[in-house]
Amino acid sequence: MLVKLPNPPYYAVIFTSKLIDQTTEYEETAVLMEELASKQEGFLGVESARNDIGITVSYWESLDAIKAWKNQADHSFARKMGREKWYSHYTLQICKVERAYDFKK
Amino acid sequence: MLVKLPNPPYYAVIFTSKLIDQTTEYEETAVLMEELASKQEGFLGVESARNDIGITVSYWESLDAIKAWKNQADHSFARKMGREKWYSHYTLQICKVERAYDFKK
Repeated sequence: MLVKLPNPPYYAVIFTSKLIDQTTEYEETAVLMEELASKQEGFLGVESARNDIGITVSYWESLDAIKAWKNQADHSFARKMGREKWYSHYTLQICKVERAYDFKK
Repeated sequence: MLVKLPNPPYYAVIFTSKLIDQTTEYEETAVLMEELASKQEGFLGVESARNDIGITVSYWESLDAIKAWKNQADHSFARKMGREKWYSHYTLQICKVERAYDFKK
């Protein structure tokens, strides 16, 4: 499902990644992180897709909400695991969403 | 491959979509649009992934570059086809990238 967009402005974190290999441990952690993120203050939604590369976009009310999620303990640990074991390359971009459109049949 | 990020600020267009069904015509048009976009003034790169949903993020130097791509004739036609034939739902978000990080092994 696509997220229901709020009215801009809000924030998006674009996370793109290349995996070394897609382990069960990685998959389980990804699911857990999505559950944990959704409990954070200011969380608006998340969308993910993966084939050659993975793209995850999470949506947040404010930069403070993004910072709090960055510092969440289990997430900090998962990020460390990611750097050590799972990702060969990733990029993280913090963006202010200025305009948003939705088309639905 | 992940795009080589420029230094912020720059712009990202996040396009998320659900397909009605993934036809050859859709696939060919998607490849062609990526080729055409890469020839546009101010284009910085594009990343795509699809499984349940598709996420395409294109990167641009300016809002003017995004507008010029929106108005490019073949792209306008492809967008019309998308609304009529390919997509059951899509969202388009125009974002200013404020911060960017890169991790590589």
